Amino acid sequence: MRMRRKKHLDEKIAKCSNLILTPPITSDYREEVKNKEYIDFNEIFGSSKPLVMEIGCGKGKFICELAKREPDKNFIAVEVNPNVLCSACELAETEGVNNVIYIKCGAEVLTKYIKPHSIERIYLNFSCPFPKKAYENRRLTNIRFLEIYKEILSASGDIHQKTDNMGFFEYSLEQYSLAGFRLKNVSLDLHNSNFENNIVTEYEKKFSELGFRIYRLEAFPN
Amino acid sequence: MRMRRKKHLDEKIAKCSNLILTPPITSDYREEVKNKEYIDFNEIFGSSKPLVMEIGCGKGKFICELAKREPDKNFIAVEVNPNVLCSACELAETEGVNNVIYIKCGAEVLTKYIKPHSIERIYLNFSCPFPKKAYENRRLTNIRFLEIYKEILSASGDIHQKTDNMGFFEYSLEQYSLAGFRLKNVSLDLHNSNFENNIVTEYEKKFSELGFRIYRLEAFPN
Repeated sequence: MRMRRKKHLDEKIAKCSNLILTPPITSDYREEVKNKEYIDFNEIFGSSKPLVMEIGCGKGKFICELAKREPDKNFIAVEVNPNVLCSACELAETEGVNNVIYIKCGAEVLTKYIKPHSIERIYLNFSCPFPKKAYENRRLTNIRFLEIYKEILSASGDIHQKTDNMGFFEYSLEQYSLAGFRLKNVSLDLHNSNFENNIVTEYEKKFSELGFRIYRLEAFPN
Repeated sequence: MRMRRKKHLDEKIAKCSNLILTPPITSDYREEVKNKEYIDFNEIFGSSKPLVMEIGCGKGKFICELAKREPDKNFIAVEVNPNVLCSACELAETEGVNNVIYIKCGAEVLTKYIKPHSIERIYLNFSCPFPKKAYENRRLTNIRFLEIYKEILSASGDIHQKTDNMGFFEYSLEQYSLAGFRLKNVSLDLHNSNFENNIVTEYEKKFSELGFRIYRLEAFPN
Protein backbone atom coordinates (compact mmCIF):
# COMPACT_ATOMS: atom_id res chain seq x y z
CA MET A 1 0.00 0.00 0.00
CA ARG A 2 1.44 3.33 -1.05
CA MET A 3 0.49 6.09 1.39
CA ARG A 4 -0.67 9.45 0.16
CA ARG A 5 1.92 12.10 0.96
CA LYS A 6 0.82 13.95 4.07
CA LYS A 7 -0.31 17.51 3.61
CA HIS A 8 2.33 20.01 4.70
CA LEU A 9 4.70 17.09 5.34
CA ASP A 10 7.85 19.19 5.20
CA GLU A 11 6.51 21.69 7.73
CA LYS A 12 5.37 18.88 10.02
CA ILE A 13 8.73 17.15 9.80
CA ALA A 14 10.46 20.48 10.46
CA LYS A 15 8.40 20.84 13.65
CA CYS A 16 9.69 17.46 14.89
CA SER A 17 13.25 18.08 13.71
CA ASN A 18 14.58 17.91 17.26
CA LEU A 19 13.44 14.27 17.36
CA ILE A 20 14.57 13.13 13.90
CA LEU A 21 18.08 12.38 12.74
CA THR A 22 18.22 12.43 8.96
CA PRO A 23 21.54 11.10 7.75
CA PRO A 24 22.59 12.24 4.28
CA ILE A 25 22.13 9.05 2.26
CA THR A 26 23.88 8.82 -1.09
CA SER A 27 22.62 6.66 -3.91
CA ASP A 28 25.21 3.94 -3.30
CA TYR A 29 24.88 2.79 0.30
CA ARG A 30 27.80 0.35 -0.11
CA GLU A 31 30.15 3.28 -0.64
CA GLU A 32 28.37 5.25 2.02
CA VAL A 33 28.77 2.77 4.88
CA LYS A 34 32.54 2.62 4.48
CA ASN A 35 32.96 6.00 6.14
CA LYS A 36 31.71 5.66 9.66
CA GLU A 37 29.89 8.54 11.33
CA TYR A 38 28.78 7.01 14.59
CA ILE A 39 25.99 8.88 16.31
CA ASP A 40 26.70 9.65 19.98
CA PHE A 41 23.41 8.59 21.57
CA ASN A 42 24.67 9.22 25.09
CA GLU A 43 25.10 12.86 24.12
CA ILE A 44 21.73 13.04 22.38
CA PHE A 45 19.82 11.51 25.30
CA GLY A 46 22.04 13.04 27.96
CA SER A 47 22.37 9.63 29.58
CA SER A 48 24.12 6.30 28.97
CA LYS A 49 21.18 3.92 29.40
CA PRO A 50 20.96 0.68 27.38
CA LEU A 51 19.95 1.28 23.77
CA VAL A 52 16.98 -0.50 22.22
CA MET A 53 16.05 -0.17 18.55
CA GLU A 54 12.94 -0.76 16.49
CA ILE A 55 13.51 -1.08 12.77
CA GLY A 56 10.46 -0.06 10.76
CA CYS A 57 8.62 1.73 13.58
CA GLY A 58 5.70 2.78 11.38
CA LYS A 59 3.42 5.20 13.21
CA GLY A 60 5.40 4.54 16.36
CA LYS A 61 2.73 3.29 18.75
CA PHE A 62 4.76 0.27 19.85
CA ILE A 63 8.00 2.13 20.54
CA CYS A 64 6.14 4.91 22.33
CA GLU A 65 4.37 2.44 24.62
CA LEU A 66 7.60 0.50 25.25
CA ALA A 67 9.55 3.68 26.00
CA LYS A 68 6.96 4.60 28.64
CA ARG A 69 7.09 1.12 30.19
CA GLU A 70 10.90 1.07 30.28
CA PRO A 71 12.15 4.51 31.32
CA ASP A 72 15.54 3.00 32.26
CA LYS A 73 16.36 2.52 28.57
CA ASN A 74 16.78 4.76 25.55
CA PHE A 75 15.04 3.96 22.29
CA ILE A 76 16.02 4.43 18.66
CA ALA A 77 13.22 4.15 16.10
CA VAL A 78 14.32 3.59 12.51
CA GLU A 79 11.90 4.37 9.70
CA VAL A 80 12.44 5.15 6.06
CA ASN A 81 8.95 6.42 5.22
CA PRO A 82 8.61 10.16 6.04
CA ASN A 83 4.81 10.05 6.27
CA VAL A 84 4.61 7.52 9.08
CA LEU A 85 7.79 8.86 10.68
CA CYS A 86 6.03 12.20 11.00
CA SER A 87 3.07 10.55 12.76
CA ALA A 88 5.47 8.67 15.06
CA CYS A 89 7.20 11.88 16.11
CA GLU A 90 3.89 13.68 16.69
CA LEU A 91 2.77 10.78 18.90
CA ALA A 92 5.96 10.94 21.00
CA GLU A 93 5.45 14.71 21.44
CA THR A 94 1.78 14.31 22.40
CA GLU A 95 2.56 11.56 24.88
CA GLY A 96 5.50 13.45 26.37
CA VAL A 97 7.92 10.58 25.76
CA ASN A 98 11.50 11.82 26.00
CA ASN A 99 13.55 8.63 25.66
CA VAL A 100 12.96 8.00 21.96
CA ILE A 101 14.87 9.39 19.00
CA TYR A 102 13.95 8.76 15.37
CA ILE A 103 16.29 8.07 12.48
CA LYS A 104 15.09 8.46 8.92
CA CYS A 105 17.06 5.85 7.03
CA GLY A 106 16.97 2.31 5.66
CA ALA A 107 18.40 -0.63 7.63
CA GLU A 108 21.19 -1.12 5.07
CA VAL A 109 23.09 1.96 6.30
CA LEU A 110 22.85 1.28 10.03
CA THR A 111 26.48 0.15 10.40
CA LYS A 112 27.57 3.61 9.24
CA TYR A 113 25.80 5.43 12.07
CA ILE A 114 25.49 2.87 14.88
CA LYS A 115 28.58 1.95 16.90
CA PRO A 116 29.37 -1.79 16.72
CA HIS A 117 27.81 -3.94 19.47
CA SER A 118 26.10 -0.97 21.11
CA ILE A 119 22.44 -2.11 20.80
CA GLU A 120 20.80 -4.33 23.44
CA ARG A 121 17.76 -5.38 21.47
CA ILE A 122 16.25 -4.95 18.02
CA TYR A 123 12.50 -5.16 17.50
CA LEU A 124 11.08 -6.16 14.13
CA ASN A 125 7.31 -5.75 14.34
CA PHE A 126 5.13 -6.70 11.40
CA SER A 127 7.81 -5.77 8.91
CA CYS A 128 6.72 -5.64 5.28
CA PRO A 129 6.87 -9.28 4.05
CA PHE A 130 7.69 -8.38 0.40
CA PRO A 131 6.03 -11.63 -0.74
CA LYS A 132 7.40 -11.46 -4.29
CA LYS A 133 10.59 -13.49 -4.70
CA ALA A 134 12.12 -10.61 -6.71
CA TYR A 135 12.00 -8.37 -3.63
CA GLU A 136 13.30 -11.01 -1.21
CA ASN A 137 16.41 -8.99 -0.39
CA ARG A 138 14.23 -6.14 0.93
CA ARG A 139 12.77 -8.35 3.68
CA LEU A 140 14.15 -7.16 7.01
CA THR A 141 15.19 -10.72 7.93
CA ASN A 142 17.12 -11.29 4.70
CA ILE A 143 20.58 -12.50 5.64
CA ARG A 144 22.18 -9.23 4.45
CA PHE A 145 20.23 -7.44 7.18
CA LEU A 146 20.86 -10.16 9.77
CA GLU A 147 24.60 -9.64 9.25
CA ILE A 148 24.10 -5.90 9.87
CA TYR A 149 22.15 -6.61 13.07
CA LYS A 150 24.97 -8.91 14.23
CA GLU A 151 27.40 -6.03 13.83
CA ILE A 152 25.41 -3.56 15.93
CA LEU A 153 23.97 -5.93 18.59
CA SER A 154 25.82 -6.25 21.91
CA ALA A 155 27.30 -9.58 23.06
CA SER A 156 24.10 -10.46 24.93
CA GLY A 157 21.85 -8.69 22.43
CA ASP A 158 18.87 -10.20 20.67
CA ILE A 159 16.15 -9.65 18.08
CA HIS A 160 12.46 -9.84 18.94
CA GLN A 161 10.32 -10.42 15.88
CA LYS A 162 6.56 -10.56 15.41
CA THR A 163 4.53 -11.00 12.25
CA ASP A 164 1.13 -12.20 11.10
CA ASN A 165 2.55 -13.31 7.74
CA MET A 166 3.16 -17.06 7.75
CA GLY A 167 5.29 -17.09 4.60
CA PHE A 168 7.49 -14.30 5.95
CA PHE A 169 7.91 -16.14 9.25
CA GLU A 170 8.87 -19.37 7.46
CA TYR A 171 11.39 -17.36 5.43
CA SER A 172 12.73 -15.66 8.56
CA LEU A 173 13.29 -18.99 10.35
CA GLU A 174 15.38 -20.18 7.41
CA GLN A 175 17.40 -16.96 7.21
CA TYR A 176 18.17 -16.94 10.96
CA SER A 177 19.45 -20.53 10.67
CA LEU A 178 21.56 -19.55 7.65
CA ALA A 179 23.14 -16.69 9.62
CA GLY A 180 23.79 -18.94 12.64
CA PHE A 181 21.35 -17.30 15.06
CA ARG A 182 20.00 -19.30 18.02
CA LEU A 183 16.24 -19.15 18.49
CA LYS A 184 14.32 -18.97 21.75
CA ASN A 185 10.68 -18.61 22.73
CA VAL A 186 9.40 -19.39 19.25
CA SER A 187 5.62 -19.02 19.24
CA LEU A 188 3.49 -20.13 16.31
CA ASP A 189 0.31 -18.73 17.84
CA LEU A 190 1.25 -15.90 20.18
CA HIS A 191 -2.26 -14.90 21.22
CA ASN A 192 -2.99 -18.46 22.39
CA SER A 193 0.31 -18.86 24.21
CA ASN A 194 1.50 -18.08 27.74
CA PHE A 195 3.49 -15.04 26.60
CA GLU A 196 2.93 -12.08 28.89
CA ASN A 197 3.36 -8.32 28.57
CA ASN A 198 2.83 -8.34 24.83
CA ILE A 199 2.39 -4.84 23.43
CA VAL A 200 -0.33 -5.30 20.83
CA THR A 201 0.21 -3.00 17.87
CA GLU A 202 -2.80 -1.61 15.96
CA TYR A 203 -1.89 -3.79 13.00
CA GLU A 204 -1.59 -6.83 15.25
CA LYS A 205 -5.00 -6.22 16.81
CA LYS A 206 -6.65 -5.88 13.42
CA PHE A 207 -5.16 -9.00 11.86
CA SER A 208 -5.55 -11.11 14.97
CA GLU A 209 -9.24 -10.20 15.08
CA LEU A 210 -9.53 -11.30 11.46
CA GLY A 211 -8.39 -14.76 12.57
CA PHE A 212 -4.72 -14.57 11.59
CA ARG A 213 -2.21 -16.19 13.89
CA ILE A 214 0.57 -14.00 15.26
CA TYR A 215 4.06 -15.52 15.05
CA ARG A 216 6.92 -14.49 17.33
CA LEU A 217 10.51 -15.41 18.08
CA GLU A 218 13.67 -14.25 19.82
CA ALA A 219 16.96 -14.64 17.93
CA PHE A 220 20.47 -14.49 19.41
CA PRO A 221 23.56 -13.96 17.25
CA ASN A 222 25.95 -15.36 19.88
CA MET B 1 -1.06 -44.05 25.20
CA ARG B 2 0.31 -47.41 26.27
CA MET B 3 -0.46 -50.12 23.73
CA ARG B 4 -1.72 -53.50 24.83
CA ARG B 5 0.92 -56.15 24.23
CA LYS B 6 0.04 -58.01 21.04
CA LYS B 7 -1.14 -61.57 21.38
CA HIS B 8 1.57 -64.07 20.50
CA LEU B 9 4.00 -61.16 20.05
CA ASP B 10 7.12 -63.26 20.48
CA GLU B 11 6.00 -65.75 17.83
CA LYS B 12 5.06 -62.95 15.46
CA ILE B 13 8.40 -61.22 15.95
CA ALA B 14 10.17 -64.56 15.44
CA LYS B 15 8.40 -64.95 12.11
CA CYS B 16 9.78 -61.56 10.97
CA SER B 17 13.22 -62.18 12.45
CA ASN B 18 14.84 -62.02 9.03
CA LEU B 19 13.71 -58.35 8.84
CA ILE B 20 14.55 -57.24 12.37
CA LEU B 21 17.94 -56.49 13.80
CA THR B 22 17.76 -56.54 17.60
CA PRO B 23 20.98 -55.19 19.06
CA PRO B 24 21.73 -56.32 22.61
CA ILE B 25 21.14 -53.12 24.59
CA THR B 26 22.60 -52.88 28.07
CA SER B 27 21.10 -50.74 30.78
CA ASP B 28 23.72 -48.00 30.37
CA TYR B 29 23.71 -46.86 26.77
CA ARG B 30 26.55 -44.42 27.39
CA GLU B 31 28.85 -47.37 28.14
CA GLU B 32 27.29 -49.35 25.34
CA VAL B 33 27.94 -46.89 22.52
CA LYS B 34 31.67 -46.75 23.26
CA ASN B 35 32.23 -50.14 21.65
CA LYS B 36 31.27 -49.79 18.02
CA GLU B 37 29.61 -52.69 16.20
CA TYR B 38 28.77 -51.14 12.86
CA ILE B 39 26.13 -53.02 10.91
CA ASP B 40 27.14 -53.80 7.32
CA PHE B 41 24.02 -52.73 5.46
CA ASN B 42 25.56 -53.38 2.05
CA GLU B 43 25.91 -57.03 3.05
CA ILE B 44 22.40 -57.19 4.52
CA PHE B 45 20.76 -55.66 1.45
CA GLY B 46 23.18 -57.22 -1.03
CA SER B 47 23.66 -53.79 -2.62
CA SER B 48 25.34 -50.48 -1.87
CA LYS B 49 22.46 -48.08 -2.55
CA PRO B 50 22.08 -44.83 -0.57
CA LEU B 51 20.76 -45.43 2.95
CA VAL B 52 17.67 -43.63 4.24
CA MET B 53 16.44 -43.94 7.82
CA GLU B 54 13.17 -43.34 9.60
CA ILE B 55 13.42 -43.01 13.37
CA GLY B 56 10.22 -44.04 15.10
CA CYS B 57 8.62 -45.82 12.14
CA GLY B 58 5.51 -46.85 14.10
CA LYS B 59 3.40 -49.28 12.10
CA GLY B 60 5.65 -48.63 9.12
CA LYS B 61 3.19 -47.38 6.51
CA PHE B 62 5.30 -44.37 5.58
CA ILE B 63 8.60 -46.22 5.17
CA CYS B 64 6.88 -49.01 3.23
CA GLU B 65 5.32 -46.54 0.78
CA LEU B 66 8.59 -44.61 0.43
CA ALA B 67 10.59 -47.80 -0.14
CA LYS B 68 8.24 -48.72 -2.99
CA ARG B 69 8.50 -45.24 -4.53
CA GLU B 70 12.30 -45.21 -4.30
CA PRO B 71 13.63 -48.66 -5.23
CA ASP B 72 17.08 -47.17 -5.85
CA LYS B 73 17.58 -46.64 -2.11
CA ASN B 74 17.75 -48.91 0.92
CA PHE B 75 15.75 -48.09 4.03
CA ILE B 76 16.42 -48.54 7.72
CA ALA B 77 13.41 -48.26 10.03
CA VAL B 78 14.20 -47.69 13.69
CA GLU B 79 11.54 -48.45 16.28
CA VAL B 80 11.79 -49.22 19.97
CA ASN B 81 8.23 -50.49 20.52
CA PRO B 82 7.95 -54.22 19.68
CA ASN B 83 4.20 -54.11 19.12
CA VAL B 84 4.24 -51.58 16.29
CA LEU B 85 7.53 -52.93 14.99
CA CYS B 86 5.80 -56.28 14.52
CA SER B 87 2.99 -54.61 12.51
CA ALA B 88 5.59 -52.75 10.42
CA CYS B 89 7.41 -55.96 9.51
CA GLU B 90 4.16 -57.75 8.67
CA LEU B 91 3.23 -54.86 6.36
CA ALA B 92 6.58 -55.04 4.55
CA GLU B 93 6.11 -58.79 4.08
CA THR B 94 2.55 -58.39 2.82
CA GLU B 95 3.54 -55.64 0.39
CA GLY B 96 6.58 -57.56 -0.83
CA VAL B 97 8.93 -54.68 -0.02
CA ASN B 98 12.51 -55.95 0.06
CA ASN B 99 14.54 -52.76 0.55
CA VAL B 100 13.64 -52.09 4.20
CA ILE B 101 15.28 -53.49 7.30
CA TYR B 102 14.06 -52.84 10.83
CA ILE B 103 16.16 -52.16 13.90
CA LYS B 104 14.66 -52.54 17.35
CA CYS B 105 16.47 -49.94 19.40
CA GLY B 106 16.28 -46.41 20.76
CA ALA B 107 17.86 -43.48 18.90
CA GLU B 108 20.42 -43.00 21.69
CA VAL B 109 22.43 -46.09 20.62
CA LEU B 110 22.51 -45.40 16.88
CA THR B 111 26.14 -44.29 16.83
CA LYS B 112 27.14 -47.74 18.08
CA TYR B 113 25.60 -49.56 15.12
CA ILE B 114 25.53 -47.01 12.28
CA LYS B 115 28.77 -46.09 10.54
CA PRO B 116 29.57 -42.35 10.76
CA HIS B 117 28.26 -40.22 7.89
CA SER B 118 26.66 -43.18 6.10
CA ILE B 119 23.01 -42.03 6.11
CA GLU B 120 21.61 -39.81 3.35
CA ARG B 121 18.41 -38.76 5.05
CA ILE B 122 16.61 -39.17 8.36
CA TYR B 123 12.82 -38.93 8.56
CA LEU B 124 11.12 -37.94 11.79
CA ASN B 125 7.38 -38.33 11.26
CA PHE B 126 4.97 -37.38 14.03
CA SER B 127 7.45 -38.31 16.73
CA CYS B 128 6.04 -38.43 20.24
CA PRO B 129 6.10 -34.80 21.49
CA PHE B 130 6.59 -35.70 25.19
CA PRO B 131 4.88 -32.45 26.18
CA LYS B 132 5.93 -32.59 29.84
CA LYS B 133 9.08 -30.60 30.51
CA ALA B 134 10.41 -33.48 32.65
CA TYR B 135 10.56 -35.71 29.56
CA GLU B 136 12.07 -33.07 27.27
CA ASN B 137 15.23 -35.12 26.70
CA ARG B 138 13.18 -37.94 25.20
CA ARG B 139 11.95 -35.75 22.35
CA LEU B 140 13.62 -36.93 19.15
CA THR B 141 14.72 -33.38 18.32
CA ASN B 142 16.37 -32.81 21.70
CA ILE B 143 19.92 -31.63 21.06
CA ARG B 144 21.38 -34.89 22.39
CA PHE B 145 19.67 -36.68 19.49
CA LEU B 146 20.53 -33.96 16.96
CA GLU B 147 24.21 -34.48 17.80
CA ILE B 148 23.76 -38.22 17.14
CA TYR B 149 22.07 -37.52 13.79
CA LYS B 150 25.00 -35.24 12.86
CA GLU B 151 27.37 -38.13 13.46
CA ILE B 152 25.55 -40.58 11.20
CA LEU B 153 24.36 -38.21 8.43
CA SER B 154 26.47 -37.90 5.29
CA ALA B 155 28.05 -34.58 4.25
CA SER B 156 25.03 -33.69 2.13
CA GLY B 157 22.58 -35.45 4.43
CA ASP B 158 19.45 -33.92 5.94
CA ILE B 159 16.53 -34.46 8.28
CA HIS B 160 12.92 -34.26 7.11
CA GLN B 161 10.54 -33.67 9.97
CA LYS B 162 6.75 -33.53 10.13
CA THR B 163 4.47 -33.08 13.11
CA ASP B 164 0.99 -31.89 13.98
CA ASN B 165 2.12 -30.78 17.43
CA MET B 166 2.73 -27.02 17.48
CA GLY B 167 4.60 -27.01 20.79
CA PHE B 168 6.89 -29.79 19.64
CA PHE B 169 7.60 -27.95 16.37
CA GLU B 170 8.41 -24.72 18.23
CA TYR B 171 10.75 -26.74 20.47
CA SER B 172 12.35 -28.45 17.48
CA LEU B 173 13.05 -25.11 15.74
CA GLU B 174 14.88 -23.93 18.86
CA GLN B 175 16.88 -27.16 19.21
CA TYR B 176 17.97 -27.16 15.55
CA SER B 177 19.22 -23.59 15.94
CA LEU B 178 21.08 -24.57 19.12
CA ALA B 179 22.80 -27.43 17.28
CA GLY B 180 23.72 -25.19 14.34
CA PHE B 181 21.47 -26.82 11.72
CA ARG B 182 20.39 -24.83 8.66
CA LEU B 183 16.67 -24.96 7.88
CA LYS B 184 15.04 -25.15 4.47
CA ASN B 185 11.50 -25.49 3.18
CA VAL B 186 9.93 -24.71 6.53
CA SER B 187 6.17 -25.07 6.22
CA LEU B 188 3.81 -23.95 8.96
CA ASP B 189 0.77 -25.34 7.16
CA LEU B 190 1.89 -28.18 4.92
CA HIS B 191 -1.53 -29.16 3.58
CA ASN B 192 -2.15 -25.61 2.36
CA SER B 193 1.30 -25.21 0.82
CA ASN B 194 2.79 -25.98 -2.59
CA PHE B 195 4.68 -29.02 -1.29
CA GLU B 196 4.29 -32.00 -3.62
CA ASN B 197 4.69 -35.76 -3.26
CA ASN B 198 3.83 -35.74 0.42
CA ILE B 199 3.27 -39.24 1.79
CA VAL B 200 0.34 -38.76 4.16
CA THR B 201 0.61 -41.07 7.15
CA GLU B 202 -2.55 -42.44 8.81
CA TYR B 203 -1.88 -40.28 11.83
CA GLU B 204 -1.38 -37.22 9.60
CA LYS B 205 -4.65 -37.83 7.77
CA LYS B 206 -6.59 -38.16 11.01
CA PHE B 207 -5.22 -35.04 12.68
CA SER B 208 -5.34 -32.96 9.53
CA GLU B 209 -9.02 -33.83 9.12
CA LEU B 210 -9.60 -32.73 12.71
CA GLY B 211 -8.35 -29.27 11.69
CA PHE B 212 -4.79 -29.48 12.98
CA ARG B 213 -2.08 -27.87 10.89
CA ILE B 214 0.77 -30.08 9.76
CA TYR B 215 4.25 -28.56 10.29
CA ARG B 216 7.26 -29.61 8.24
CA LEU B 217 10.93 -28.69 7.80
CA GLU B 218 14.20 -29.86 6.34
CA ALA B 219 17.34 -29.48 8.49
CA PHE B 220 20.96 -29.64 7.33
CA PRO B 221 23.84 -30.17 9.73
CA ASN B 222 26.46 -28.78 7.33
